[in-house]
Amino acid sequence: MTQTLVSWNDTPTKEAILTFVAAVTDESGPRYVPPADRVATFDNDGTLWCEKPAYIQLLFAIQRLRQMGTEDPGLLEKPAFRAAATGDMGYFADLYANDVPALIQTIYDSHAGMDQDEFERLAGEFLAEAAHPRFGVPYRQCIYQPMVELLTYLQDSGFKVFIASAGGMSFMRTVSEEIYGVPRENVIGSNITFQVERRDGELVLLRRPGLVEPLDDGPGKPVNIELHIGRPPVLAAGNSNGDIEMLELAEASRRPFLSLLLHHDDAEREYAYDAGAEKALQLAEARGWTVISMRADFDWVFAF
Amino acid sequence: MTQTLVSWNDTPTKEAILTFVAAVTDESGPRYVPPADRVATFDNDGTLWCEKPAYIQLLFAIQRLRQMGTEDPGLLEKPAFRAAATGDMGYFADLYANDVPALIQTIYDSHAGMDQDEFERLAGEFLAEAAHPRFGVPYRQCIYQPMVELLTYLQDSGFKVFIASAGGMSFMRTVSEEIYGVPRENVIGSNITFQVERRDGELVLLRRPGLVEPLDDGPGKPVNIELHIGRPPVLAAGNSNGDIEMLELAEASRRPFLSLLLHHDDAEREYAYDAGAEKALQLAEARGWTVISMRADFDWVFAF
Repeated sequence: MTQTLVSWNDTPTKEAILTFVAAVTDESGPRYVPPADRVATFDNDGTLWCEKPAYIQLLFAIQRLRQMGTEDPGLLEKPAFRAAATGDMGYFADLYANDVPALIQTIYDSHAGMDQDEFERLAGEFLAEAAHPRFGVPYRQCIYQPMVELLTYLQDSGFKVFIASAGGMSFMRTVSEEIYGVPRENVIGSNITFQVERRDGELVLLRRPGLVEPLDDGPGKPVNIELHIGRPPVLAAGNSNGDIEMLELAEASRRPFLSLLLHHDDAEREYAYDAGAEKALQLAEARGWTVISMRADFDWVFAF
Repeated sequence: MTQTLVSWNDTPTKEAILTFVAAVTDESGPRYVPPADRVATFDNDGTLWCEKPAYIQLLFAIQRLRQMGTEDPGLLEKPAFRAAATGDMGYFADLYANDVPALIQTIYDSHAGMDQDEFERLAGEFLAEAAHPRFGVPYRQCIYQPMVELLTYLQDSGFKVFIASAGGMSFMRTVSEEIYGVPRENVIGSNITFQVERRDGELVLLRRPGLVEPLDDGPGKPVNIELHIGRPPVLAAGNSNGDIEMLELAEASRRPFLSLLLHHDDAEREYAYDAGAEKALQLAEARGWTVISMRADFDWVFAF
C-alpha cells in the first residue's frame, strides 16, 4: 500500500478513506459491499479540477460567444454576447449569483447547432491550449493530483467510479479518460439535447438548444445517478451546496458509506472560499461527513 | 473456441459474427478497434427476450392497472383501466398500432407515484412469478439463449455491452445482471422521471409521471446512446423498425461495424412475424446488414 494516495498527507482524512475501502472490500467482514454495488460518484468542478477564477466551461463558452460576436456583430445586441466581447466577467458573475439555470443555459447554447464531432474537437483544443490565468498551464492540467490518485485507488479496489457533475457531460468526456482514467460512459453531467439528422444518407448527431432535464445539480444529481447507474453510491465526493443531495444519497444507500466534502482552504496553493459551500459544510459537521482540507490533507495539490 | 456460441448453428451468420469479433480484436490487423471504443448495443424486446403475444412490460402494467381499478373503482371510467379490468387486449393492441407514445405513457404512469424500491420489488416479483401464456415459464426465462451467449462472448472479447431498448430502464435493470450478465448501469431504456423527497430526514427517490425525453425508440436511440455512453456502437443488434437508427449509428461509427437484425421466422419454436419490422428488413437487405434467422441460425431458442 506504500504507493497508495502518495500525494495525501498522513492525516485522519486519509486514514478514514483507507479504513473505509479496507472494510467494504473485506469479504469476511461485516461492512463488505459486493463489487456490483461498489459505486463511487465524484463531482468535477472544484472536486476534481479547479473551478476558480471561473468554471472552465464558462470560459470556453465565453470564448465561443466572443468568436460568434465577431463573425456576426448583430449578436452583440444580446447581453451575454456583449459581455463576452467586452470581457465583462461581472455580467457572468451576477448570473452565477442570481440565476444559475440561465448561466448554464448560456453556456450550453453557445455550442448548440454544431454536430457533436465538431464540439468535441473545439472542447479538446480549448482544454489543451487555453492557459489558466494564475497557474499558466492548460486547463486540462488543473486537476487535483490527490483526487486523481483517489479515483485510481478506488478503481483498483473494485469500485465503479463515476463523475456526476453539473458541468457538461460531453465537455468532460473529451478528456475524462486521459486525465482521470474515467471512461466516457461513466461521466454523468448536465447536457444539451441532440437530434438525429441524415447527411448524404449518413446519420449525424446535432447539438440542439435546450437542456436535458433535470440539470445535474442539487436534487438533480440523485435523479441522474438513478437514471444512469441505477444504484446509489456508497462513496460520494463533492465540494459545494450542489453536491448535498448526492452526499445524502450515499448516506441513504443502506450500505456502509463515505461522504467526502473537499474544503477549499488553501489560498496559497489553490484558493480559499466557502461561498457556495456554506450549507454543505454545516451539514458535513452535523452528519459526520468527512471533510477534506486541501491545506492539511493534500501534500501536493497539482501535478505541475 | 469450441464453447463459443454453442446454441448457434454453423451458418454464415455465426461465421459473420466470429469473423467480425476476430477482426476488431486483432491488434495487428487493419480492422482493430481498441477496447475503449468496442461498444455493443442490444435492443431488448424481441431481440433478447420474447415480445409476443405482448410486451412483457405491458402485461406488467395491465396487472397493475387491474389492481388499481379493484382498489378504486372510480378509475374504471378511464379506458385503459376499463380495458385492463375486462381483459380487453384489443384496446392495447389498437394503441400499439396507432399511438405508441400513448401506450408507453400508459405503461409508465401505471407505476408512477411509488418509490423506486417498491417498484423494483413489484417488477422483480412479476418477472419471476407470472407465466408466459404459451411457454408456461416465468417471463424472466423467456430469453433467447443464443443471444445471451452472444452477450457473454462479446464481454469475453473485451466489448462493453449495453442494452438500449424502448422498454423501461428500471424494469429491465431488476433482472439484467442475473439473466443477461449486463450490469444495471449498462442498461439504457425509456423511463419515467424521478423526484427527490425526504422522509424522516432520509432522501428517497419517487417515481413521477412523465417520461424522460427522448423516448428510447427510433431516432431516440442514438440520442440516448450518446447521452449514456458518449460513443457510437461498433456492433448493434435489433429486431424492429424502432432499431433502424441504432443500426445506422453503428454504420456511421467510422469504425469496422456489424449491424445485426433478428428476424422472427420461427412459428414453431417462437413466433413468425414481420409486422413492425418491414422497413428494417428492407434496409438490412439494401445496406448489407446481417439478418439473423431464428429458424436457421438458432440451434436452441430458449434454455428451457
